[in-house]
Amino acid sequence: MKNYTVIIPAAGQGKRMGAGHNKQFLLLHDKPLIVHTLTVFAQDTHCREVILVVNEQEIEDMSALIKTYGIQKTVRIVPGGRERQQSVFEGLKAVSSDEEIVLIHDGARPFIKVSDIQKLVRSAVQDGAAIIAVPVKDTVKQVEQGEVTNTVDRSSLWAVQTPQAFRLSGILKAHKRAERDGFSGTDDASLVEWIGERVRVVEGDYQNIKLTTPEDMWFAEAIIKMRKEETNA
Amino acid sequence: MKNYTVIIPAAGQGKRMGAGHNKQFLLLHDKPLIVHTLTVFAQDTHCREVILVVNEQEIEDMSALIKTYGIQKTVRIVPGGRERQQSVFEGLKAVSSDEEIVLIHDGARPFIKVSDIQKLVRSAVQDGAAIIAVPVKDTVKQVEQGEVTNTVDRSSLWAVQTPQAFRLSGILKAHKRAERDGFSGTDDASLVEWIGERVRVVEGDYQNIKLTTPEDMWFAEAIIKMRKEETNA
Repeated sequence: MKNYTVIIPAAGQGKRMGAGHNKQFLLLHDKPLIVHTLTVFAQDTHCREVILVVNEQEIEDMSALIKTYGIQKTVRIVPGGRERQQSVFEGLKAVSSDEEIVLIHDGARPFIKVSDIQKLVRSAVQDGAAIIAVPVKDTVKQVEQGEVTNTVDRSSLWAVQTPQAFRLSGILKAHKRAERDGFSGTDDASLVEWIGERVRVVEGDYQNIKLTTPEDMWFAEAIIKMRKEETNA
Repeated sequence: MKNYTVIIPAAGQGKRMGAGHNKQFLLLHDKPLIVHTLTVFAQDTHCREVILVVNEQEIEDMSALIKTYGIQKTVRIVPGGRERQQSVFEGLKAVSSDEEIVLIHDGARPFIKVSDIQKLVRSAVQDGAAIIAVPVKDTVKQVEQGEVTNTVDRSSLWAVQTPQAFRLSGILKAHKRAERDGFSGTDDASLVEWIGERVRVVEGDYQNIKLTTPEDMWFAEAIIKMRKEETNA
């Protein structure tokens, strides 16, 4: 198994969470959200280091957090850009140039499993780019001005999560071109697709939710409780 | 506001729930799942009656449940068909012919709010057919043989829920033709779309989840807890 560096953009303002500040500091089962996410990578021996991309004015608070909670992994903190895509690009520039595989992961997805990270890394080593995703469960329709225009065939639709894994050279190239041409994508893989390269899909887990709205915090508490019961069973 | 009849297909085997029997009997906060769903409609004074479509061999158990939990609404129990679509059709045949508006709702969606039901009914009265849906939050990609073929523009994509509301005449016509031509859809609205009629979309709520897998039971407990805290706040 190859080692990797993971970039975690954590500079969001958490507007949809309605917390009035960066949601990464919200307490989830007595620990800040970002600490849960960092702990997953701290437990993975294949993770060489974490590059945490944060708001300039939150660098000190984040450093303090990492010390307080005793994260057992090298975490380098890098100031982010205006938008998520720019923050990831800043993170990419900070990756050690001898690294082969880089992962990009949302700070607000604390439930990724190490086993799924490893499947993803293996796929990226083989094919250059790979993402974690799950089949879409809902019926999905195209809607224009409040009216259904089409029921989409969902059999080939997948809901995309993170982490996403890339060869460092490939994702750097994609981000550079995107910046040059002013292209923005909804995720990092879309930049790689945009420059015409292949992206593989690794099946993940519905529990790997992104914490966006206040009810997600409740769902997150439920997942923690469920996992505890499974461990004790 | 118009009155309506609601059809609730509850004949599923709950395979993905892994319960070994119909998930409608699973206990959620000390009450069977289907009782939660029935209680919502019992509380809506515009609901004339509920037509509950169940497996032949579960008719007695369902009747007993309705008595035990004292559901304050007329509930007629009707035996279902082989698939969900056939069960709904059986339910439609049982609707009183002088009813104008009929709703179709999953037994496994206990968190629909009465206020959203009323918005839906008003839209169906005006336009003939209306569904509850929410904007798709995830990045969605088209995947063929484990490889991304396209990142879908999600700005016009909506995830469809229930209830769905129809003029009785329109939905009966759609189901009759679908049976005759062997057409099957992923939801009832798709039959109405298939015969070329308009379907309106009413924005719902992300909390209106469908309980399908074991983790959904945990999410459901979290929603109940969250709503209790909101009420007490």
